[in-house]
Amino acid sequence: MTPSTPADPLPPAERPHVVLAPDAFKGTLDATEVAVALRDGVLAAAPEARVTSLAMADGGEGTLDALVASWQSAVRTVETVDAIGRPTVARWTVSPDGLIGVVELAEASGLPRVSDEPLQPLHASTRGTGDVAAAVLDAGVHEVLVCLGGSASTDGGAGILTGLGARLLDGEGRVVPDGGEGLARAAAIDLSGLHPRAREVRWRLAVDVTNPLLGEHGAAAVFAPQKGAGPGEVAFLDEALTRWANLLERETAVRVHELPGAGAAGGVPAGLAAVLGAALEPGALLVAEAVGLPAALSDAALVITGEGSFDSQSVRGKVADGVARLAAVSPARPPVVVVAGQVLLPAEQTRAAGIAAAFSVAPGPVDLEHLIPRTATRLSEVAASVTNLLQVTAWRSGGSSVRT
Amino acid sequence: MTPSTPADPLPPAERPHVVLAPDAFKGTLDATEVAVALRDGVLAAAPEARVTSLAMADGGEGTLDALVASWQSAVRTVETVDAIGRPTVARWTVSPDGLIGVVELAEASGLPRVSDEPLQPLHASTRGTGDVAAAVLDAGVHEVLVCLGGSASTDGGAGILTGLGARLLDGEGRVVPDGGEGLARAAAIDLSGLHPRAREVRWRLAVDVTNPLLGEHGAAAVFAPQKGAGPGEVAFLDEALTRWANLLERETAVRVHELPGAGAAGGVPAGLAAVLGAALEPGALLVAEAVGLPAALSDAALVITGEGSFDSQSVRGKVADGVARLAAVSPARPPVVVVAGQVLLPAEQTRAAGIAAAFSVAPGPVDLEHLIPRTATRLSEVAASVTNLLQVTAWRSGGSSVRT
Repeated sequence: MTPSTPADPLPPAERPHVVLAPDAFKGTLDATEVAVALRDGVLAAAPEARVTSLAMADGGEGTLDALVASWQSAVRTVETVDAIGRPTVARWTVSPDGLIGVVELAEASGLPRVSDEPLQPLHASTRGTGDVAAAVLDAGVHEVLVCLGGSASTDGGAGILTGLGARLLDGEGRVVPDGGEGLARAAAIDLSGLHPRAREVRWRLAVDVTNPLLGEHGAAAVFAPQKGAGPGEVAFLDEALTRWANLLERETAVRVHELPGAGAAGGVPAGLAAVLGAALEPGALLVAEAVGLPAALSDAALVITGEGSFDSQSVRGKVADGVARLAAVSPARPPVVVVAGQVLLPAEQTRAAGIAAAFSVAPGPVDLEHLIPRTATRLSEVAASVTNLLQVTAWRSGGSSVRT
Repeated sequence: MTPSTPADPLPPAERPHVVLAPDAFKGTLDATEVAVALRDGVLAAAPEARVTSLAMADGGEGTLDALVASWQSAVRTVETVDAIGRPTVARWTVSPDGLIGVVELAEASGLPRVSDEPLQPLHASTRGTGDVAAAVLDAGVHEVLVCLGGSASTDGGAGILTGLGARLLDGEGRVVPDGGEGLARAAAIDLSGLHPRAREVRWRLAVDVTNPLLGEHGAAAVFAPQKGAGPGEVAFLDEALTRWANLLERETAVRVHELPGAGAAGGVPAGLAAVLGAALEPGALLVAEAVGLPAALSDAALVITGEGSFDSQSVRGKVADGVARLAAVSPARPPVVVVAGQVLLPAEQTRAAGIAAAFSVAPGPVDLEHLIPRTATRLSEVAASVTNLLQVTAWRSGGSSVRT
């Protein structure tokens, strides 16, 4: 009835497999630190457990770090330009098997990188991310995972394509400037210089919004204001993106005007879907697959995920949702437990999302300032409690006594 | 794999039995309110569950309320006197089978009842509790459960005995006054007028301290100061209790000088152990037994207990400890989960105490003022999470997938 002791080790196949797949607790702990804290708790309660730790992310900023942590892959860098053309260095990585390259848009083209200057909503571009993508292609990968989010630009992905060697030309055959401004003049796309591998690989875009490219819910109207666009610039950018969508349809026969999610990251999915055949995928699932979560879950007895705030957004495409979806279709159907800084989602909705239970790290009445430094300790404590609870029930030999 | 639906009801024997055995959250919810909130959560997650709710207490103040709630027994009253002799009304109850009477010392003889007057550490007495006990004996019970705690007096239980008809006499055969003052003069005990049933029934005293009657850890030194005794009065009372212990030994041949716990409630256990053969028992276990917890646990799949603060005291004789001890020896060995206002005990010590897991009702960073009104809702939420977690693991048919 008791868990195994060091003197009486279980064979690996009989040791309960616990999978830890947390997101970062933003501003407090990164996903790897969360996983380490959870692991301490799990092993304190069940020293015989096999623990698999996978740092997760939702496909936005921080995803590169999570993939590097989960893969234990090398961080590579490339010299490129930021969203307004200044020299910068961007990081990228490749999966251990060499097949998947990861490009995080915010690395080269992120808004934080250019926050020291007045914002340039019409000029900002994703060209630097194209340079990163070219470096990734040079590494020989078969698949490029592009993490969107945090962009400074509204260029419909034209910058990435130009970074990969495409040329946007105006009606007189002249190269147009970078940024949304250039889209407004673009009349043709010259793909003759495109990176030779660009159309050989599979492009997968981690997208966590469903906004279309154009119109009142589009890239310009919804997202450009936070990149510095005033009402006139929003209208200009929406028109430029419309022109861009028409051009893409004419040149590639792919229509992105109504594509859900094409409005992400200043319209990046539009250009990449049309020219490169990129697929738009929910970020959390994409990351989960990339780090091998489905395989890890196949014999899991328990999966613990977590994030800073567990709320209604969490079960709409965030990490917890992705973990729950994959757990639900795994053969072991392990229970999914969320440990969060704060739990705002009612238990009924939690359950409906396929998450067995959600617990806060808060030990009682406590203010944020005092909770933050205790987060790691409390993560361990809650993980230990959850593990022990399952251990004294499901894991114990027979277990028939709990089913009467 | 899924829980039963209304269209497909399980026979009672296959419905998981969940036992709720919480203490009060002092100052926020009484034990019954806590149990109701927990029940809502359990049934929200597992509508097919059989739920047994037992309000618990640790044998101190509030125990009468908990027993009345668990037994759904009538509250009876008796006119008596408070610790300083003023008229008052005290409540008591009898178990549904008529066998167990409950006397809560604080009802008649409690410190709060006399807090409107200057404290009288030498005069205060438990005589009123003796009147209550006499009423309980008149009701025909076979067993009297005396809940100690909250006393205003240091009279070695002499007041209870006099309320039951005994007389304390000085060297010249005169009745001594009530309170510790009288003990200092007592030279003989006249038991000829003792209630005829007083020595026929079983007396069980709920005691949650191990202090002896006398000396530096005794009733006078440790507890009399909070009842208003200054250093001189403490010394006087310790001497009076010594005289009392000697008298008791001489008259009954029972030696209480070194009895652990005899220092509780101003030394009440001393007089009752010597004269009435009363047994001192851990309060939480006594209450648990009285409300039928051992029987309820016999086929339980889960037991949830709780209290305002779960800390190192909780696993030393408080409700959670009593529940855990009984669960550990029940045939079903159900997992014990604590839900508390605040969780201060580390998971490792929680586990060592036989408690599978402890969770706080705090949903995240929150101050006490905002948490208190949400306590009931959060109790339901956490109970639902815990129930659902077990439901998707242990309760599901087969369950082998979680043991790989």
